[in-house]
Amino acid sequence: MSVRVAVLGAAGYTGGEVLRLLLAHPAVEVVQATSGQFAGKRLDFPHPHLRGMGTLRYTPHDALESCDVLVSCLPQGELLQRWQKVSLLAERVVDLSADFRLDAAGHARWYGKHPRPDGVPAFVYGLPEWMGEALTNARHVAIPGCMAHAGLLALLPLLHSGLARPDVLVVDAKTGSSGGGSTPDRSSHHPERANALRCYKPVGHRHTGELEGVVEHVTGQKPTIHFSATAVPGVRGILATVHAFAARPVEEAEVVRAIATRYREKPFVRLLRPSASLSPFPEPGPLLGTNHCDLAVDVDAERGRIVVNAAIDNLVKGAAGTAVHALNLMLGRPETEGLGFRGLHPL
Amino acid sequence: MSVRVAVLGAAGYTGGEVLRLLLAHPAVEVVQATSGQFAGKRLDFPHPHLRGMGTLRYTPHDALESCDVLVSCLPQGELLQRWQKVSLLAERVVDLSADFRLDAAGHARWYGKHPRPDGVPAFVYGLPEWMGEALTNARHVAIPGCMAHAGLLALLPLLHSGLARPDVLVVDAKTGSSGGGSTPDRSSHHPERANALRCYKPVGHRHTGELEGVVEHVTGQKPTIHFSATAVPGVRGILATVHAFAARPVEEAEVVRAIATRYREKPFVRLLRPSASLSPFPEPGPLLGTNHCDLAVDVDAERGRIVVNAAIDNLVKGAAGTAVHALNLMLGRPETEGLGFRGLHPL
Amino acid sequence: MSVRVAVLGAAGYTGGEVLRLLLAHPAVEVVQATSGQFAGKRLDFPHPHLRGMGTLRYTPHDALESCDVLVSCLPQGELLQRWQKVSLLAERVVDLSADFRLDAAGHARWYGKHPRPDGVPAFVYGLPEWMGEALTNARHVAIPGCMAHAGLLALLPLLHSGLARPDVLVVDAKTGSSGGGSTPDRSSHHPERANALRCYKPVGHRHTGELEGVVEHVTGQKPTIHFSATAVPGVRGILATVHAFAARPVEEAEVVRAIATRYREKPFVRLLRPSASLSPFPEPGPLLGTNHCDLAVDVDAERGRIVVNAAIDNLVKGAAGTAVHALNLMLGRPETEGLGFRGLHPL
Amino acid sequence: MSVRVAVLGAAGYTGGEVLRLLLAHPAVEVVQATSGQFAGKRLDFPHPHLRGMGTLRYTPHDALESCDVLVSCLPQGELLQRWQKVSLLAERVVDLSADFRLDAAGHARWYGKHPRPDGVPAFVYGLPEWMGEALTNARHVAIPGCMAHAGLLALLPLLHSGLARPDVLVVDAKTGSSGGGSTPDRSSHHPERANALRCYKPVGHRHTGELEGVVEHVTGQKPTIHFSATAVPGVRGILATVHAFAARPVEEAEVVRAIATRYREKPFVRLLRPSASLSPFPEPGPLLGTNHCDLAVDVDAERGRIVVNAAIDNLVKGAAGTAVHALNLMLGRPETEGLGFRGLHPL
Repeated sequence: MSVRVAVLGAAGYTGGEVLRLLLAHPAVEVVQATSGQFAGKRLDFPHPHLRGMGTLRYTPHDALESCDVLVSCLPQGELLQRWQKVSLLAERVVDLSADFRLDAAGHARWYGKHPRPDGVPAFVYGLPEWMGEALTNARHVAIPGCMAHAGLLALLPLLHSGLARPDVLVVDAKTGSSGGGSTPDRSSHHPERANALRCYKPVGHRHTGELEGVVEHVTGQKPTIHFSATAVPGVRGILATVHAFAARPVEEAEVVRAIATRYREKPFVRLLRPSASLSPFPEPGPLLGTNHCDLAVDVDAERGRIVVNAAIDNLVKGAAGTAVHALNLMLGRPETEGLGFRGLHPL
Repeated sequence: MSVRVAVLGAAGYTGGEVLRLLLAHPAVEVVQATSGQFAGKRLDFPHPHLRGMGTLRYTPHDALESCDVLVSCLPQGELLQRWQKVSLLAERVVDLSADFRLDAAGHARWYGKHPRPDGVPAFVYGLPEWMGEALTNARHVAIPGCMAHAGLLALLPLLHSGLARPDVLVVDAKTGSSGGGSTPDRSSHHPERANALRCYKPVGHRHTGELEGVVEHVTGQKPTIHFSATAVPGVRGILATVHAFAARPVEEAEVVRAIATRYREKPFVRLLRPSASLSPFPEPGPLLGTNHCDLAVDVDAERGRIVVNAAIDNLVKGAAGTAVHALNLMLGRPETEGLGFRGLHPL
Repeated sequence: MSVRVAVLGAAGYTGGEVLRLLLAHPAVEVVQATSGQFAGKRLDFPHPHLRGMGTLRYTPHDALESCDVLVSCLPQGELLQRWQKVSLLAERVVDLSADFRLDAAGHARWYGKHPRPDGVPAFVYGLPEWMGEALTNARHVAIPGCMAHAGLLALLPLLHSGLARPDVLVVDAKTGSSGGGSTPDRSSHHPERANALRCYKPVGHRHTGELEGVVEHVTGQKPTIHFSATAVPGVRGILATVHAFAARPVEEAEVVRAIATRYREKPFVRLLRPSASLSPFPEPGPLLGTNHCDLAVDVDAERGRIVVNAAIDNLVKGAAGTAVHALNLMLGRPETEGLGFRGLHPL
Repeated sequence: MSVRVAVLGAAGYTGGEVLRLLLAHPAVEVVQATSGQFAGKRLDFPHPHLRGMGTLRYTPHDALESCDVLVSCLPQGELLQRWQKVSLLAERVVDLSADFRLDAAGHARWYGKHPRPDGVPAFVYGLPEWMGEALTNARHVAIPGCMAHAGLLALLPLLHSGLARPDVLVVDAKTGSSGGGSTPDRSSHHPERANALRCYKPVGHRHTGELEGVVEHVTGQKPTIHFSATAVPGVRGILATVHAFAARPVEEAEVVRAIATRYREKPFVRLLRPSASLSPFPEPGPLLGTNHCDLAVDVDAERGRIVVNAAIDNLVKGAAGTAVHALNLMLGRPETEGLGFRGLHPL
């Protein structure tokens, strides 16, 4: 029997991808999808890629009824506001916003004057490759921020293995425009954004807190992470370039081994071998629509630098796909169920 | 038991898409894939989106062995050259080049001094929405040219219904760069192509012959088709704008009805209704990777013009997807088998 | 002594280009620039390309003072509303909106319920290659719509020479996003617009009226023009493809001669010869920032079709550059003064 | 009287930009331009933006005659090969390749087995903002590599002022496709490159040697520079993000002051103030075609990181424009002569 899932805030870009994946998921029935703006319209009204996928219509957020699992794609702050009411409606909640990613102190530090109130349960951080066990038993999951997600998949094996120093880690993330959501403003106006190549958040990005917090949680080391975000042309895709420094003299092969070992059993993370492809670099293009993360390692032994590049589709591996991945783990389903699409090339 | 399919010339862009679709097709086993350049390499070597889809390796073209169905993605002229040898190896052949689209006279007229030799069987033109019955019984199928395909899906219902005059039909097709194939040259060099907006074939395009021939074959009317092809920025996708002229005074609703009726039972052709979507215009974006064609109709009753726009992914509906569609029909499988991907948005 | 020019509505995209050209124009002094939104800010506040070009600041529209020439970049309808007051402030007015392009009847037909009131003077239509003499003596000039402009430069020599039939003319225009102005909305939101290839106005576009009216005015023939507008990826640039039909059997050379003769003395219109360049097709790329229009002619003698492609930068030749061109003519300055930039490649 | 300049290897992209600038330069006469491939063709044959700029034709490289100044745009290695002959033909030489940027040891280290032979004079490194005096008296100038150039304009004031530690400097450069030149290959094939977001040289890039060498030469400090190069969509433009670490606790204002002071008198380097513009971030868009470099500074005082972003047009400030700038200095002309174009927006 299908699991009954409701999607809250389903008319935006991550909502559209959550719907695409769940409407085709063999173990799930989408019973409700909410939208403030499009209540009464069919699901495909704002999502042209959902044409022909059924006749369900949006209901207002407040008309949400009880279900087995609630997936929330509401903008930052909104689920927190509705928490008391919404949390009664579903046994399990998967949230794609930043509302439950940090502990209360971290939340207050990075998300300002509305800290997480008391009585809100601790959410498990939904990074399946590193929190697998915890996710299996989770009732509440917070999906990672998209750039943090790519950065963590590159950073964690370096720190976990002790190969990289935790005190100087530079994460230079490049991102397409869809991470900014579906609401127009001047910086997303096509003539302003089409050829943008701008480091819009050189310091002070909120994902810094998420990165440092999760690294500490997973590795027990308190790192210093220097994060910058750069807008590049293109709609989908993130490339996170991690510049790390070797804790002791290392060869490239040793770093490759450490990362390969760590992700050997993980179906969605791939360490690219340069000789195996005409396209040897991690890049989002062939990953769009998929739940994969491609990684590559390069070492400058002379200068002691380790570079790990991580590419993902920000809306899938960086959002909706990981929500489904977490759902699969929570429900005891096969990890890859509903996530079988393998990408297009060229695109 | 699976149908054993070989793909000839599988390292180019249409070959990559044929492989993507067939490797995941439940009724098919890909038994061989050939490449002159990459013989000995794994299938994903030139196709990053095929990573993880098995361990098959390319063989040279000449190592082709017998199979149930041969799908050829060889460049124009090459299958014709190999025909005597190749045709013995497979009961059924699906060709994606122009080698067998036209009759011998048409071929000589548009493809020059190497006309189709005698003894070559007549291929069925692989336009499933209009040749369905013939395809069901076909042994040899020629997949339409990508721009001709989009144009025909727009033109044929107008002419079949008698609503449009056959003597003045303008087809203004806009296309991305992937239709030009995977071999670099100056016009496809990124700095020259990235922002191209150039009508590179205003008159004399070979698809003119294909369009006129198929229209005559299907409708019995000898049309005059004015075809132009324009390169636009972007990798995948075709938009064909058909400017037709009403044979008698018509209202938009009547034309809509004629087209809607014609394609009602066709799973891959959709006539868009403007009120049903925030994205009411046919455009390739949300169709990329899918086998769909989106259509829309507009009528200027005052001036007697009927405009039909048709959008497709040139590599799928315009090539590999239709090859699989034709294969399904030839093999008596469900039409949509292996073609279930529904697209991404935004992209 | 410099001519004192004020720019009304200078904070949008055409305003920015008008400022770029006039601030560097040797015979002009920009004495005032108005903006509702940015009053008090320096000119370069919304226009990063004007950094370092002086310290002038925007004033509110209502603070406009008297000047020699007023160039208005206000949105459609706004100059008409302010006409009584504004027309007293300047001897000469150049308007870039549609407010004064059509006669009163045409305006009422295409721009709806606010027709041009009585007492508004007739503006000269600012198409320098065809209205040169009239512009020299003009006090009021209406700059053509950008797509109409490209279309007319292609259409007029065909009709003027009698080579094309006036009763079936198809103008299929492709345009970048900047023609839509600087105000964000959903259709210009980058994720929605970046890979757009959509015929957003297949019939009923207002430039139809402008095209038909000007052709009749210039040639004395009443034409039927079938206009469609398609959004293509890219920010700047228009390619207008004119599909015309020969009034009698013609050779390509004859059409080339007619067009070449017509534009021989015109510094901004160039008829491309295919053998003279690796880039033989008119395309906006190398024209961006310039006031040039590139044309090419192709004839399908068998089917009697004449295709003329015209490429321009919509913000320069299609707006600001022509305003300066008209200004030069009105003021008796050299035609090309201030318009010497020759473009970039690749871009 | 004009200075007589010859351009060697003028048919590529930097050659085209050198020609664009020099053909319009008031103090220069272009007397010769060479091309292996296009000898006999007019200058605009491969350069559509040079249409109408005179009737000069390419001569073969070997037909080069004596002139006042030779500007070489030959690919890396070729001027070195021709040095004995070519150096006799011109009093002054400006080279845009890497042949003379490094000293002999550096050249052997980074450019392999063909080190600079004996008898080759020391070239002055053509970084006008830092080598101004030396350039004024130079006979031979080596123009910086485009990514090194952007990196150095960001790095040098930080190190010169002692604000940043020299031992850990990360330079993460993002670049468009035109830096790769005009010769097609698979990685520049449009379908492969259009949406590329790939760190194609994470370690070991040759500009590392150039960066370290010049920093040591200018500041006397031996730095460790960690350089990575990432291909992003787009044709022109570089954004270099420098992640530096404060040598002692610093406030942002202090770093801003140090950089602003350093470049106060430099006409082509601008330190952006966030409050002065709707486009507060350095980005190549509005700089395309210009010789400007835009900089911005951000400091994370808590973590001790200083980020400087530098944006340039790789073909102008990163190549042809700096060649003209150096020429102006060598010839005692005004620094900005022939470099007055101020850019376009939006683009």
